[in-house]
Amino acid sequence: MIPTIETIAVREMASGDRTFIQVYKFQGLSASKKAYLQANLHGAEIVGNAIIQQLIEFLSHLDESQLLGEIWLVPVCNPTSTNQRTHYFSTGRFNPSDGKDWNRIFWDHEKECEDLTEFAKSQQDLDVSKIQQNYRQRILASFAQQLEAIQSSPFVPYNDYYRYQLQSLCLDANYLIDIHSSSNQAIDYLYCFSSREESAKAFLLDYGLLMNEYDGDAFDEAFLKPWLALETELANLGKPVQFDVESWTLECGGGMQMQPESVAKGVRGIQNYLAAKGMLKLETPIQQQPIHLVPKNRLQRYYAPRGGMIQHRVGLGTEVKKGDRLYQILCFNKIGKLPETVDIYAISDGVVLDIATNQAANQGEYVLTVM
Amino acid sequence: MIPTIETIAVREMASGDRTFIQVYKFQGLSASKKAYLQANLHGAEIVGNAIIQQLIEFLSHLDESQLLGEIWLVPVCNPTSTNQRTHYFSTGRFNPSDGKDWNRIFWDHEKECEDLTEFAKSQQDLDVSKIQQNYRQRILASFAQQLEAIQSSPFVPYNDYYRYQLQSLCLDANYLIDIHSSSNQAIDYLYCFSSREESAKAFLLDYGLLMNEYDGDAFDEAFLKPWLALETELANLGKPVQFDVESWTLECGGGMQMQPESVAKGVRGIQNYLAAKGMLKLETPIQQQPIHLVPKNRLQRYYAPRGGMIQHRVGLGTEVKKGDRLYQILCFNKIGKLPETVDIYAISDGVVLDIATNQAANQGEYVLTVM
Amino acid sequence: MIPTIETIAVREMASGDRTFIQVYKFQGLSASKKAYLQANLHGAEIVGNAIIQQLIEFLSHLDESQLLGEIWLVPVCNPTSTNQRTHYFSTGRFNPSDGKDWNRIFWDHEKECEDLTEFAKSQQDLDVSKIQQNYRQRILASFAQQLEAIQSSPFVPYNDYYRYQLQSLCLDANYLIDIHSSSNQAIDYLYCFSSREESAKAFLLDYGLLMNEYDGDAFDEAFLKPWLALETELANLGKPVQFDVESWTLECGGGMQMQPESVAKGVRGIQNYLAAKGMLKLETPIQQQPIHLVPKNRLQRYYAPRGGMIQHRVGLGTEVKKGDRLYQILCFNKIGKLPETVDIYAISDGVVLDIATNQAANQGEYVLTVM
Amino acid sequence: MIPTIETIAVREMASGDRTFIQVYKFQGLSASKKAYLQANLHGAEIVGNAIIQQLIEFLSHLDESQLLGEIWLVPVCNPTSTNQRTHYFSTGRFNPSDGKDWNRIFWDHEKECEDLTEFAKSQQDLDVSKIQQNYRQRILASFAQQLEAIQSSPFVPYNDYYRYQLQSLCLDANYLIDIHSSSNQAIDYLYCFSSREESAKAFLLDYGLLMNEYDGDAFDEAFLKPWLALETELANLGKPVQFDVESWTLECGGGMQMQPESVAKGVRGIQNYLAAKGMLKLETPIQQQPIHLVPKNRLQRYYAPRGGMIQHRVGLGTEVKKGDRLYQILCFNKIGKLPETVDIYAISDGVVLDIATNQAANQGEYVLTVM
Repeated sequence: MIPTIETIAVREMASGDRTFIQVYKFQGLSASKKAYLQANLHGAEIVGNAIIQQLIEFLSHLDESQLLGEIWLVPVCNPTSTNQRTHYFSTGRFNPSDGKDWNRIFWDHEKECEDLTEFAKSQQDLDVSKIQQNYRQRILASFAQQLEAIQSSPFVPYNDYYRYQLQSLCLDANYLIDIHSSSNQAIDYLYCFSSREESAKAFLLDYGLLMNEYDGDAFDEAFLKPWLALETELANLGKPVQFDVESWTLECGGGMQMQPESVAKGVRGIQNYLAAKGMLKLETPIQQQPIHLVPKNRLQRYYAPRGGMIQHRVGLGTEVKKGDRLYQILCFNKIGKLPETVDIYAISDGVVLDIATNQAANQGEYVLTVM
Repeated sequence: MIPTIETIAVREMASGDRTFIQVYKFQGLSASKKAYLQANLHGAEIVGNAIIQQLIEFLSHLDESQLLGEIWLVPVCNPTSTNQRTHYFSTGRFNPSDGKDWNRIFWDHEKECEDLTEFAKSQQDLDVSKIQQNYRQRILASFAQQLEAIQSSPFVPYNDYYRYQLQSLCLDANYLIDIHSSSNQAIDYLYCFSSREESAKAFLLDYGLLMNEYDGDAFDEAFLKPWLALETELANLGKPVQFDVESWTLECGGGMQMQPESVAKGVRGIQNYLAAKGMLKLETPIQQQPIHLVPKNRLQRYYAPRGGMIQHRVGLGTEVKKGDRLYQILCFNKIGKLPETVDIYAISDGVVLDIATNQAANQGEYVLTVM
Repeated sequence: MIPTIETIAVREMASGDRTFIQVYKFQGLSASKKAYLQANLHGAEIVGNAIIQQLIEFLSHLDESQLLGEIWLVPVCNPTSTNQRTHYFSTGRFNPSDGKDWNRIFWDHEKECEDLTEFAKSQQDLDVSKIQQNYRQRILASFAQQLEAIQSSPFVPYNDYYRYQLQSLCLDANYLIDIHSSSNQAIDYLYCFSSREESAKAFLLDYGLLMNEYDGDAFDEAFLKPWLALETELANLGKPVQFDVESWTLECGGGMQMQPESVAKGVRGIQNYLAAKGMLKLETPIQQQPIHLVPKNRLQRYYAPRGGMIQHRVGLGTEVKKGDRLYQILCFNKIGKLPETVDIYAISDGVVLDIATNQAANQGEYVLTVM
Repeated sequence: MIPTIETIAVREMASGDRTFIQVYKFQGLSASKKAYLQANLHGAEIVGNAIIQQLIEFLSHLDESQLLGEIWLVPVCNPTSTNQRTHYFSTGRFNPSDGKDWNRIFWDHEKECEDLTEFAKSQQDLDVSKIQQNYRQRILASFAQQLEAIQSSPFVPYNDYYRYQLQSLCLDANYLIDIHSSSNQAIDYLYCFSSREESAKAFLLDYGLLMNEYDGDAFDEAFLKPWLALETELANLGKPVQFDVESWTLECGGGMQMQPESVAKGVRGIQNYLAAKGMLKLETPIQQQPIHLVPKNRLQRYYAPRGGMIQHRVGLGTEVKKGDRLYQILCFNKIGKLPETVDIYAISDGVVLDIATNQAANQGEYVLTVM
């Protein structure tokens, strides 16, 4: 199967050079469903590019009959952030102009959909697939107004323009997979929306975070929240349904690197997920793996209570008990005293999910996260 | 009058060096009211330091009997941001760790005060000053819990720690003045909360923005919003009151500079305001100046629709009419064509409030604001 | 006259996007001489882009018979630096990887030309134009080896690759003009090489710096130094000559802006210079203007002896006398004292050439330059 | 043994906060020799702080009689760079103002010592220790003039001021050890000056770089070069001597981290070295370990010939043969083609010394070094 490749200009730079996103579109024989994958929304989180390249390779070797629907893949989806450097490092997590996190800028239909209750009522006698189709039209129509505003206006900040470009590619998808990693060092895990726990097992990962609170306007949230909202409305009306629409953020290891195991796990999980969803017909049997889901608000993030250097830190994946030493700060001073060390202990049990790449910490800087 | 000077450590850096904030406290003979002033919360916005230094000079030459109450002044209130440099420039607008704007991190009692309606009911038979006193106690008690959390926890990010330091100095004030400037170039103006329009006239400025929408967790908002919320509750109960509590953000010209006229206007306005509020007894008569207040949501911000260089831009303070040319973008390209120029026209009438210091723009970068 | 436009890829970014330089080539009827102009080598120094665009316009309206030779123009010649942002500012003065100033990376034939004395001896009986032709061949042959190294090597840092791209365009030129500005705020002036003082008058500027010391590997130096070295060798052999080869760096005002007067002066000076060199036949008579040339090593740069805020600074172009106050530092402290002001006085006479855009200074940061 | 602790202000920041360096001075019973150690000159290279802290601990447990001479230790010796952040990373390798590498700013007596030949002649009949004493006086006298210039001048850039502070602490030392690490990831090694190869064995490291070329104005160079120059002059006069003066840069692993093995090796090597030099009397016997010294100009640095993501890279310490694959670049494009991979092969044999932390590379960015 050979993909169609579409190249879309996303930004004209001050120099007159332009940056682009490029979509690889695989089209199966039957076109029922659509999956959308992207990588590298945050500049340092490059691992998904290797995953997507391997998936492109993999799909290229499939026969059209093995793909039911279409899969769109967008590696290096945010050139401004991927190419940004400070010293040797990829520091493109925020838009330099306004400090906005590149993954907190997306358009969330739920926020503007004030008549959702009425809409739900109007749909309650229809079958699920028909409701899904009608609601999709509403979302797309509403999004079309965004485009109009952007095209007619002389004053759109890049965030708005850019989000339009990305979301126009995915709003009609059934399954959205946004591949991230830690900006620091982390284990592999995923973010799972409430009610999609069962599907999470297809990614064959050990851990996940269950989103019981939202960061706001993240790419995965902006896609799925309107659907969850309608599910809630319909349930309130006595018609509990689940649309064939899902959204995932995969976290595949650490930043500024593409660890081979994280790449392999990512590829394997996505293949299995798409097969489980009936989009891929593969010879290997579909697998399920129990996943340990931890509510997101139970994450314990530790920041340095003193300035200094971090040493004797527990490793990624360590199971810690309340009271265990997590790390030690080596503190210097400028008041004529000897250096001292301060031990920091776990305040609850858990698994070490993420640790800072930088072991120098000004007071209040991030050190590690226990899940 | 000689101020008491308090020096408070705010951060231990990785090197063991520490940064501090220093409070200059002037205490009059009668201690009824308190005004709190600070400057340089954003790194580039240095102008308020000169204003505060001149106010310290001015107050030092007053007699204790001329000050009714106490005035606390904090110049260079955010050392981390003031001292940050990238190339020659002050780029300390955001916390580098999380991209958070230093003026969007503050604790807002209103957000956690769920029983405000009940509280209002319990107070409706009291007189205003008694209610003010009671509510102040509630706010301070609630804030004390913040402190406890910070002191007992090994995982507080610097934003939380820092905001505690600043807000602990001002929560018992009547009048709060946070002196800012544009990060770019701007005229002098202020932010005015709804219902405080009358007081705004004492600052002797031509323009102001009326806050009909909030940025969220800004220093001025975090201080005043709980009071406005209680005023609303009491009005709903048929007891319209206005507490003797106000909050102002002054915008005194452009960033990385201290324009003498902006400094002079700032000093004059603050002196007159404090006199109008009965805190200063001066020989010069109290003045009032009509101020043109524009609703904040009517600001029209223009971003570059193309990458290129900005030229022929209208000047600060220009009155523009819909259809007037605001600026021209000189666009280069890398596709073998001649450079071209693109004119950008005003889409509504107004006054040019703010213009970008940088006349090179990547697509979607900020150019100017019309008020 | 219509230019030929050549687009050359200079860099593939991590995202797969590419940046380019684009050369506008005007070819007159007779092809004797070549002038090469470029702009925006440092990211913040955008003014030359407007100058080049106006020159392209101007040349487009000339008849081929009015141009004797060819003129190559390269605006936005360093996309990596033009497009770089930190907060709102153009901070592209250095390569982020190695801190190298983009204008200190160029290939200087003089440094590797160890047998120059022998070469000079071999040429002393030829006429100047023949020597010029022979030496040019040597330079180009030597440069060709650079290219070979770059093309065959898997380990060329971008500095080397980029310098090859730019210098390959200009090494056969007679006149090179590199348009810069201050990164801060400055008057208009130029850098003049020793022995080219007479030609400097054609630029119609009031001031210039005479290069009696070199920064090393700057674009203008790398071009002209080999020629000056040969002139010296020939003079030592009793054959004083001056080749028809010149190199100029124009400094047209301040950074991140394109001041209309600086643009106009730049355009006018370059037109007049090219006419004076016999490359343009214009109706307006060729002009000469005395230029005040100050030896570069007599520049007095003032750095802040204390940390603080700069106020009461003398303006650009001010003539100062030894002992005059240049500026005042408003110094805060964190040791419980009142703010203080420190006056800084001129240690010699001169004209204020350049002032810092940023009026906040950590100790040892740049404040102003007296010429 | 209890150290004397001296705290020296090095910089007043714009905010009025100050940064300091703090010297821990251990004084033995006999005061013949002096060793000077510092760490963290580059912001990301924190490992030496742990080494120095452990040495302070170690020395504190010694008896005065076990230390012959004095040892001065300066951890976190460059607060400006240690505390600098961009996003999560320590990006303090360069002075933001001028792009100067913090380890290329030091005062090198050799460069100004024009009459060294005469001096050598005047000393040739004296014994080595007397010459050493006399030359030391010359260096110190010359340096004193630096101080005078700095103290009397209103225009000293911070680089000059800062270098004075550090060098004033070490110029009278016999042994200087500057503890660095890679800014990226590296094995442990040291820089060895020509003629000091024998002493290098005491550091108990496997690898070293022999400095047959200089970076210019590095801390170790600025200290030792004047001594090597005098040794050369005396050798030319037929009096080959070696002063009891040495200078070392230790490279202890990677940046932004303090790997326990690198710390342990650093501590062990320094203890053994000081014992070998007769400054420490320890119970453990003095050791010697052959060290593989590679001429510095034989280092092969590999930069990315294409933009993309680095994968399948050989590990640190790998022995590679010419023709072995070193890494692969995964290249994306924006011209409608499939992603491709490009293999990069070794052009010579060697050991992998250093690899980039960041596996995303714009064209021409650093990937790895083979020694």
